[in-house]
Amino acid sequence: MKKSALSALGHRTALPPISWLMQTALTRPRLISLAAGFTDNATLPVEISRKLLNEILRSPKTGRPALQYGITAGETNLRQLTARHLQKLDLASSSFSSSSLVLEQKSRARRKDEDEKIHSPERVMITGGSQQLLYMTLEALCDEGDIILVEDPTYFVFLSILQSQGIHARGVKLERDGIDLVHLEKVLQRLKETSEIRRVKALYLISYFQNPTGVTTSFSKKTGALKILKKFEQAAEHPIYLLEDAAYRELSFPDRADLRVSRAEQQLRLTIPPSALTVRGAAERVIYTGTYSKPYAPGARVGFGILPEPLFTAVQRIKGNHDFGTANLLQQILARALETGLYDRHVAKVRKNYARKARVMKQALAEHFPANVEIWESGGGLYFWARLPKGISAGVKSKMFQTALRNNVLYVPGELCYADDPSRAKPDNEMRISFGSASEENIRKGIARLGGVLKRFTR
Amino acid sequence: MKKSALSALGHRTALPPISWLMQTALTRPRLISLAAGFTDNATLPVEISRKLLNEILRSPKTGRPALQYGITAGETNLRQLTARHLQKLDLASSSFSSSSLVLEQKSRARRKDEDEKIHSPERVMITGGSQQLLYMTLEALCDEGDIILVEDPTYFVFLSILQSQGIHARGVKLERDGIDLVHLEKVLQRLKETSEIRRVKALYLISYFQNPTGVTTSFSKKTGALKILKKFEQAAEHPIYLLEDAAYRELSFPDRADLRVSRAEQQLRLTIPPSALTVRGAAERVIYTGTYSKPYAPGARVGFGILPEPLFTAVQRIKGNHDFGTANLLQQILARALETGLYDRHVAKVRKNYARKARVMKQALAEHFPANVEIWESGGGLYFWARLPKGISAGVKSKMFQTALRNNVLYVPGELCYADDPSRAKPDNEMRISFGSASEENIRKGIARLGGVLKRFTR
Repeated sequence: MKKSALSALGHRTALPPISWLMQTALTRPRLISLAAGFTDNATLPVEISRKLLNEILRSPKTGRPALQYGITAGETNLRQLTARHLQKLDLASSSFSSSSLVLEQKSRARRKDEDEKIHSPERVMITGGSQQLLYMTLEALCDEGDIILVEDPTYFVFLSILQSQGIHARGVKLERDGIDLVHLEKVLQRLKETSEIRRVKALYLISYFQNPTGVTTSFSKKTGALKILKKFEQAAEHPIYLLEDAAYRELSFPDRADLRVSRAEQQLRLTIPPSALTVRGAAERVIYTGTYSKPYAPGARVGFGILPEPLFTAVQRIKGNHDFGTANLLQQILARALETGLYDRHVAKVRKNYARKARVMKQALAEHFPANVEIWESGGGLYFWARLPKGISAGVKSKMFQTALRNNVLYVPGELCYADDPSRAKPDNEMRISFGSASEENIRKGIARLGGVLKRFTR
Repeated sequence: MKKSALSALGHRTALPPISWLMQTALTRPRLISLAAGFTDNATLPVEISRKLLNEILRSPKTGRPALQYGITAGETNLRQLTARHLQKLDLASSSFSSSSLVLEQKSRARRKDEDEKIHSPERVMITGGSQQLLYMTLEALCDEGDIILVEDPTYFVFLSILQSQGIHARGVKLERDGIDLVHLEKVLQRLKETSEIRRVKALYLISYFQNPTGVTTSFSKKTGALKILKKFEQAAEHPIYLLEDAAYRELSFPDRADLRVSRAEQQLRLTIPPSALTVRGAAERVIYTGTYSKPYAPGARVGFGILPEPLFTAVQRIKGNHDFGTANLLQQILARALETGLYDRHVAKVRKNYARKARVMKQALAEHFPANVEIWESGGGLYFWARLPKGISAGVKSKMFQTALRNNVLYVPGELCYADDPSRAKPDNEMRISFGSASEENIRKGIARLGGVLKRFTR
């Protein structure tokens, strides 16, 4: 038999770069990986999970439902708790958008929420991590050859899904407060002129502490993006969605509200805007995906989303075929964690931990990185973004990457985070550096090693 | 906006019949459902799971890996344990295939296993239930318009996946010991004549205690089917796989080996043949899917499979995009259950329980069902299959189904288990009746009610 029986998708699906990076890490035991987006082992909620599971499995009454099949869209109590959780996050954010308008804004947000039922449990879907929801949303939305607009750069596993499903990507320039709206409009205009606008289904934004750059999209940019997408819907002849991936939203560094809040820290708060769901009139155009994995535990993988119709129904049916609902035991852990307040307490601890590690990395970067490397710092998440002077390659095949490996330090070459987009070349002078899983000692050592390598190449 | 932005798949994916049946059950609190394929609440391993989780989460050393990200194909220890588990099942089965040849067969099976490495951990993939593996296998294998051969009747959620992915199905007649091989060959021959043979990618068999009929495929039929598929590969110009779904394999009713084994019971043992993986030279053409959900707990959903190349690699990459690996916490529960022997002890209990419930249902059927209803009894699984005299409809829109509902008893209309196949009409005189989730009391009551309805219609 010469030919394989694989489908086009089966043939096409490439080895994701993340696997290759992980394998590389495994073959070098002395390697310090600043590449992994893993969460910190030290803060995983071992004790809390044991406590919660003992409560759940204490009696058949609560234990049996946790071990039985459930409902495709998710357990009713977790959907309610998730809706309330998101509402709380959005109201908390909106109250900071201007200190003098706090109360008025708060009540306006509440009114809007009641009007549009944007945080209704019926619109919440529980999934096996937000990754599964991204996958199913693209299945529901895109045919082969359709187009998704993405940030330049963006989350590389999302690019792997696009590649596998035969979906094309177009990059939109990223600024420090989110995508360049002028460029967004230009890209859409060009697609309109080439009659490709009908293939455009969504704009994908990782709106909080973005992977890989750490950028948080401002509320005015979310509003602006939705307005621009709307403008092109007539030409597209169908809705164009904003797919908001909020995976890192809860990993904001604490604002020390217990201390006297300084001006600077107020500013920091301003960088955590409410979700695009709260943009007036946008509820029918926003697909919101989030996760409990990163703030709680990836090993108890539970994600969630809010979807407008007809997407909710389509994704629910698709999920029925994938797995008819995420494992109940995991859903019950999260439900109980949220109910008891243990979730919030744990997340507060996790945020402090990442804030500390980010400070350690920041100091190490200041000490060891050459001055001509531009560092993008974030108010949360797991990453720093480094831009080398133009013309110096940090790409997968570059001498720098190989030298770093030989010196036992691994980073994510920035070029892996750029979509295949024929309209521009991929920059190769950038790197994603993560403080998520490495210890403080290894962060210091790793940055020192990487700094040494950089100095050789940027001199 | 008149048009929706949904993809062809998004538009096409229908509401699965299982959801509709579940909703119907929910709206009638006094309904006795003999429709659900749920496992029995009473036997869910609440205590065992609590014990195992306390062991796993007792220390950071074992607790942290369970709460962290893992490897896409599954945790190394669970893959090893699963490979050994399957090998044990296959060796145990082959030792029964003829009492006088036990030892010779056993050593032959071992030799074959060593030769072909059919139970190698490297070929094992761990998934979110076997459902997810079926979904991903079809993604890897089929383009829209491709053909999968299925049993007539078959598992209806599998038909939902085919419908959603735009894959066509052709039914193969089912006999009491598996598919009709003469019919299989005829179906393939016809597809060859119409030049559709190139679209045929696999034959899907639920080989143990089949859903919905309870039929177990004999080993000689597995061997025969593989031979026939092979014969058509040249015309197809690619491999044609046997997709063996062994979801119910471990739910065989106990053979009371502790008592003196009677002839009749020896016969019963003969009905549990080894998997198609053990057919000589077939390892490269068999995709095997199994699950720990049904024997252990659906709420701690873990499935598994053995896949030949290039499918293993394709499915592994696809899984990387779905969820980069099934939740570790669930994998660790199953690994520890297998290691400690608690899994085997639990499954022994579950099998006894279902055997008892099957006996209760059998008695009730004998008492309440009209004599002209043909009952297919099984040596395991969760189902009885009932065939009414021809011309009497038990279909979704039939008076009988409506009358049964009004009398607060629900069954699965057999017609839902038949693929859309233009070459034959769907029989509508059958029903799947499950003893899985109903209590013994409700089994008796439910069958009495259903029998009463049947008598009215079959008189």
